Amino acid sequence: MFQTVTMALDWLGIVVFAVTGALMASRKQMDIVGFVLLGTVTGIGGGTFRDVVLGTLPVFWVKDPTYLLACVIVSCAVFFTAHIPQSRHRFLLWIDAVGLALFAVTGAEKALEAQSGPVVAVAMGVVTATFGGVIRDILGNESPVILSREIYVSAALAGALIFVGLIGLSAPREAALIAGFAVAFGIRALALVNGWSLPRYRPRG
Amino acid sequence: MFQTVTMALDWLGIVVFAVTGALMASRKQMDIVGFVLLGTVTGIGGGTFRDVVLGTLPVFWVKDPTYLLACVIVSCAVFFTAHIPQSRHRFLLWIDAVGLALFAVTGAEKALEAQSGPVVAVAMGVVTATFGGVIRDILGNESPVILSREIYVSAALAGALIFVGLIGLSAPREAALIAGFAVAFGIRALALVNGWSLPRYRPRG
Amino acid sequence: MFQTVTMALDWLGIVVFAVTGALMASRKQMDIVGFVLLGTVTGIGGGTFRDVVLGTLPVFWVKDPTYLLACVIVSCAVFFTAHIPQSRHRFLLWIDAVGLALFAVTGAEKALEAQSGPVVAVAMGVVTATFGGVIRDILGNESPVILSREIYVSAALAGALIFVGLIGLSAPREAALIAGFAVAFGIRALALVNGWSLPRYRPRG
Repeated sequence: MFQTVTMALDWLGIVVFAVTGALMASRKQMDIVGFVLLGTVTGIGGGTFRDVVLGTLPVFWVKDPTYLLACVIVSCAVFFTAHIPQSRHRFLLWIDAVGLALFAVTGAEKALEAQSGPVVAVAMGVVTATFGGVIRDILGNESPVILSREIYVSAALAGALIFVGLIGLSAPREAALIAGFAVAFGIRALALVNGWSLPRYRPRG
Repeated sequence: MFQTVTMALDWLGIVVFAVTGALMASRKQMDIVGFVLLGTVTGIGGGTFRDVVLGTLPVFWVKDPTYLLACVIVSCAVFFTAHIPQSRHRFLLWIDAVGLALFAVTGAEKALEAQSGPVVAVAMGVVTATFGGVIRDILGNESPVILSREIYVSAALAGALIFVGLIGLSAPREAALIAGFAVAFGIRALALVNGWSLPRYRPRG
Repeated sequence: MFQTVTMALDWLGIVVFAVTGALMASRKQMDIVGFVLLGTVTGIGGGTFRDVVLGTLPVFWVKDPTYLLACVIVSCAVFFTAHIPQSRHRFLLWIDAVGLALFAVTGAEKALEAQSGPVVAVAMGVVTATFGGVIRDILGNESPVILSREIYVSAALAGALIFVGLIGLSAPREAALIAGFAVAFGIRALALVNGWSLPRYRPRG
């Protein structure tokens, strides 16, 4: 049962990030192969980085290429439907928020599975959640979303902290996964709606 | 004999990408050490990514530093001869096309050697072929060539598909390698000459 | 004793690069979490790349998360003190020079420890020294410092060559580490003060 929940969240995160990558391709008016490349790289980028750094090689999509095929199919689907949302940039940001929250908890979870301690698990949640989007923005030649004014990395950090904290308090994993996801997504969503941001560094004198 | 063909193609790909990296350095008017850095990173970038993701570590140039030395020598040679081609940008694109086609087949071949299935092999061909160029363009602060209007990633994809497909049909490896290379280079060359491009995504009403 | 010297230099390099990452965050007026992300990625980026390529996985900061905590603390400290230096950009360049020189020797040293030959060790010194800064500049959406007019990569190269050369001549490791550091930092410092640069490639005719 637990395996199923984790795996479902992980799959959902990959699909959702693949959509954001393909939407970036639509903003750049790329061809369908460009959609597939950008969608796939964004979908599997965070998990690839996580696996490499933890040393669980070969990476997950070499072990199970179904992930690759899913990214390819999703990216092609976006090629034919990207005109449907009213604002593709706004849609990208919201879908990205779902992926951010999902990977913040599943990234931390995978690190715990690989016997990492809590500090590494939180860091891995944050990095898995943000890495795919950074690659997407760099390949699309746009300013990385981690530089956005609204709260972004902090949402992933909060979600990963909640998840790892609850696991440390022996909470059931499903509850911890859902709580972490809810916190990360809730913070990012409120930030997007209300334009919330943490106080920024201001040069003085 | 087969070992020799694969190895020769692999070497050629590395040298050819090193030349494109050094040409990028010439466009940025870097010094000779910058040529060496950019040439080397572009030459070995794709293969490094491939080895890391497949988990065949340490990577190939740590096992055999001759690859590094070759990139260094090639980059230095470009420093003194880059004024010879009439248009360095045009020359870079053509040399890049050769490297793209070479790595599309040798990348897929290395993945098959590491016991990967056909889907992963094709993906690895595409990624090995495009990764070095992406790094080169990012380090050179230019728009990544994968965003170029002409067919680019698709050529690598076609070459890798042909190679993996022929291997699957039990064709001799040398024939599969040459057919895959010819298809990838042919498509990219025709695209460069004729300005061919796949239909691009167009925002609608 | 030797362990202590290497470890101290390594720690200093990480802290110093974390400061440059956080200073980049201050230039981008990021929030405190952005400081932590950029500081940490810059601090551990070079060593992460080195460990991955050498295959010594999981990477050092997964084995010992104290490195992560140090980067977090340093980045937070910079958030509250970055207004103190008169010119943050100038300060960043000088601190970066210290990190460059430190990682040029410790990167080469780690490669020798992992049984690499001298060519790989020199390359690893250069890459470890420059990788963190490249990531920092890309994430900060600024032109990579390796494209700077003043001597940069060459300083790391000279330091790594001196270190590996002295080790090859059976010099004591502490002496080799200090000589390599001094050469790398000295060259970069003189370049910064005097605007030294190697002859750059100039298009002809």
